[in-house]
Amino acid sequence: MGPVKSLYQSMIPNLEEHPERLNATLERVQEVANIILEGKAPNLRQVLKDAKNPFQHPREPLRPKQAIIIANSLAQLATWSQIQNMIQLINYSEISKAEAIDLHETYKIPVSKLEKDIVPIKGEGCWILDIEGKTYLDMDSNYSATNLGMSNEDIAKGLYNQACQLISMKEDRVHIPRSRFLKSFKGMLPEEIAYFYWQNSGGEAVDKSLKIAKAYTGQTGVVAFKGGFHGRTHGAIAVTYNIKYREPFGLDSLDWVHFADYNDASTVEELFVSGKSKIVILELVQGEEAGIRPAHPDFVKKLRQICDRYDGVLICDEVQTGFGRVAEKEGQWFACQNYDIVPDIIIIGKSFGGGYPVTAVVTNEKISQAMIPGYDGSTFGGNPMAMVSAMIATRQMQNLNLTKNVIDRSSQIKEGLYKLREKYSLIGDIRIKGLFIGFDLPSVEHTWKFQQLLARHSIKSSLTTDKTIRFLPPLVISKEDIDFLLNKIDLALDDLEKYDQDN
Amino acid sequence: MGPVKSLYQSMIPNLEEHPERLNATLERVQEVANIILEGKAPNLRQVLKDAKNPFQHPREPLRPKQAIIIANSLAQLATWSQIQNMIQLINYSEISKAEAIDLHETYKIPVSKLEKDIVPIKGEGCWILDIEGKTYLDMDSNYSATNLGMSNEDIAKGLYNQACQLISMKEDRVHIPRSRFLKSFKGMLPEEIAYFYWQNSGGEAVDKSLKIAKAYTGQTGVVAFKGGFHGRTHGAIAVTYNIKYREPFGLDSLDWVHFADYNDASTVEELFVSGKSKIVILELVQGEEAGIRPAHPDFVKKLRQICDRYDGVLICDEVQTGFGRVAEKEGQWFACQNYDIVPDIIIIGKSFGGGYPVTAVVTNEKISQAMIPGYDGSTFGGNPMAMVSAMIATRQMQNLNLTKNVIDRSSQIKEGLYKLREKYSLIGDIRIKGLFIGFDLPSVEHTWKFQQLLARHSIKSSLTTDKTIRFLPPLVISKEDIDFLLNKIDLALDDLEKYDQDN
Repeated sequence: MGPVKSLYQSMIPNLEEHPERLNATLERVQEVANIILEGKAPNLRQVLKDAKNPFQHPREPLRPKQAIIIANSLAQLATWSQIQNMIQLINYSEISKAEAIDLHETYKIPVSKLEKDIVPIKGEGCWILDIEGKTYLDMDSNYSATNLGMSNEDIAKGLYNQACQLISMKEDRVHIPRSRFLKSFKGMLPEEIAYFYWQNSGGEAVDKSLKIAKAYTGQTGVVAFKGGFHGRTHGAIAVTYNIKYREPFGLDSLDWVHFADYNDASTVEELFVSGKSKIVILELVQGEEAGIRPAHPDFVKKLRQICDRYDGVLICDEVQTGFGRVAEKEGQWFACQNYDIVPDIIIIGKSFGGGYPVTAVVTNEKISQAMIPGYDGSTFGGNPMAMVSAMIATRQMQNLNLTKNVIDRSSQIKEGLYKLREKYSLIGDIRIKGLFIGFDLPSVEHTWKFQQLLARHSIKSSLTTDKTIRFLPPLVISKEDIDFLLNKIDLALDDLEKYDQDN
Repeated sequence: MGPVKSLYQSMIPNLEEHPERLNATLERVQEVANIILEGKAPNLRQVLKDAKNPFQHPREPLRPKQAIIIANSLAQLATWSQIQNMIQLINYSEISKAEAIDLHETYKIPVSKLEKDIVPIKGEGCWILDIEGKTYLDMDSNYSATNLGMSNEDIAKGLYNQACQLISMKEDRVHIPRSRFLKSFKGMLPEEIAYFYWQNSGGEAVDKSLKIAKAYTGQTGVVAFKGGFHGRTHGAIAVTYNIKYREPFGLDSLDWVHFADYNDASTVEELFVSGKSKIVILELVQGEEAGIRPAHPDFVKKLRQICDRYDGVLICDEVQTGFGRVAEKEGQWFACQNYDIVPDIIIIGKSFGGGYPVTAVVTNEKISQAMIPGYDGSTFGGNPMAMVSAMIATRQMQNLNLTKNVIDRSSQIKEGLYKLREKYSLIGDIRIKGLFIGFDLPSVEHTWKFQQLLARHSIKSSLTTDKTIRFLPPLVISKEDIDFLLNKIDLALDDLEKYDQDN
């Protein structure tokens, strides 16, 4: 296909092939031309005027006739390689960066801060291409939801086939993709933990795990931990420590939730002895709020013993730690396996579906059998598309031997960070569990600045917590990518030192 | 391709093309052969034995060599058309009905009743093909989640393209599919209701809508209604009336929830006057629990007035009623439009993504602006795949002029049911709002029996509520399909009369 036609088709997509796209805007095509052609880009509105084409708002979708005029104009100025680059950027986004941000800013209920520094348009392995044509190494993985990378052709194919066949089926009804998953999912969770209740988000699964534990114990009391984070529904925030997440919603002084010190089992024991609770929920590595804080093995063993003694329910929220994130030995897909205990309930999610929203409460037979039809129900939980994603994603994790990669890359990054600490006194405490990585800088201001500096060096870090820089790279990250990362951290720390001296 | 090779490929799928499939089992191939060849099906285990192929469990995946032997054997006995039918059934499920059910029964936490009478494998418009090769007219639409039918090639293509490009992105970050949706979504919701917070399930969106309303009003009190159903998270069941959904989880006597009589605004006014609440949540047609009970226009107007007077928040849970389900005039995509009021918050979901799990809390600018970053957050809410689905599904709804079809089919079914009531005294009260259809039979036992009779006549009805038969057909249902339905209801009522006389 010739350059003019190819350019035209990027602006006026064939909706038969790309029903997810819109026509490009003048603003976006101008933006792309400016990026690729730099100083040589023509003024496209002038081009349209010269061709006597009626004026329109730069954010209106282009009409076919306008696209032809613009394609002709650009094709005259650009090399074939430049044209290909322009086509790629317009194909990935036919909306300008400013418009993409404006739409979100205008119509988002601002319950969270809008992140707009990087607008990703295409993922490949650990790399992200952003709307301005820059690439970044992803050190966030959507909070560990895209551990297999941000695009996935196998899952894409599976979802295409499934959506053409049977796109949805409620949780209650037998369907084949779930049978396939149940038949083929093996060797990742502890053997006893094999009974599923399907959900769509981590918070929702936490919420439901509490219901199941309450129904089993016949009591509503729950012990959760200081520094813990479990999600955002009424049930999930009730057991989340940070009071600013609970107080505005009247969930700051619930009589059924008791917060205990993390890594100290004594309060838990007291609450169990006094009959106030028979349920414990925890993260084995506190992530969101505590900036990577692992549980002590003794603490975890003690919790297991207490729950055993009182027929209690030990719930491990492995939404972020699961599926290899914190592996220390091959085959340790869940953090509980590092601690050599079997929880009564494991909550799984995030990367379970390779990016597709699928989560579950998974438990043992005894707790499972205490449930009664009518206690819950779900329209979308465990739907055919979710199960296709979960089956393909978990197969990929196993075929790629991801836990081995986590161990190797974890050592590599650990060694690198320790070396960098010798060079830069800015680095404080370093906490690494598998590829759940945190290290402290002197202050919150330092973390903010450091994130900006990393971005300039093509590293997209995760959210910071207090003065902790966090990295949650995709688990498919390669040796070369970690080398790249360490090199860039080095450069960014150098910049940070200079910035420190200048301020 | 020859019959042997085609049969072989149905049993040993190419995982490059079909990563969502497994190899077929002997049990399934035998089941399919029995269905298609009836008495002429060979004993396939004997076939393998005769070919000196080692024995295996009938639920083990077939090995390629075994599949060749079986394909040869079947190809000799069957016509080309029979072979094609066998291939289709094996392609759609390589697992037998019994195994598919066993896997669910074994590994499902039984929080809801497992529905296993029909195991759907392929949807097309309003029709479902089940694992035994029978077809059914779908009168449930997954509680209104698959209003566009159970398969959707356009959404399939969009999801394929998106998963190859960028499969996930957290709610906080700007991404292009959401910008595309926001730019193109027009004319369905009331104009003021344009500010979105994205979620994955209806219950989760209800839960978050309460948080937003609490934050806006600065109070936690909520008025909900007797007979209402809003979902299953801690927040959503708190406002759901049926005590059996709340009591086992300690949510039966919350001081912040007040249940009022449906269709009577006086209690609401008292609660607002006394300062106990400034938030009301309701379904404009009570569905799950009340067996199709519409709100009175005066009641709804009164609620609007009360909320206006006290700067309260009127939340309409339109998860089931939205996107055309109860349209009475063209363009009435939401039930609130039938009542000519604008709620402060509308919760949307179910069919929003054409089957993909995507829901949202949608509100006006004033309430939106009361939110503060940190109040919530979501990994999967409004992810790129969800937004692709929502954009394509809502475009389809509009292009198909679905509200017009709802009005026409609703009249047709209304007329038909009234005629049938003249013929059969078994039919009691008939309640129809758009394609939300309920009619009463003399007793709960009658509804159970009637569902079975309908299934024999190829009609898959929705769940019953008490003595109410409910139909929620896909909104794409045709005139011919409704004719078919009415004819089958006639036959099933005739059967029911006879059954009544015999018992």
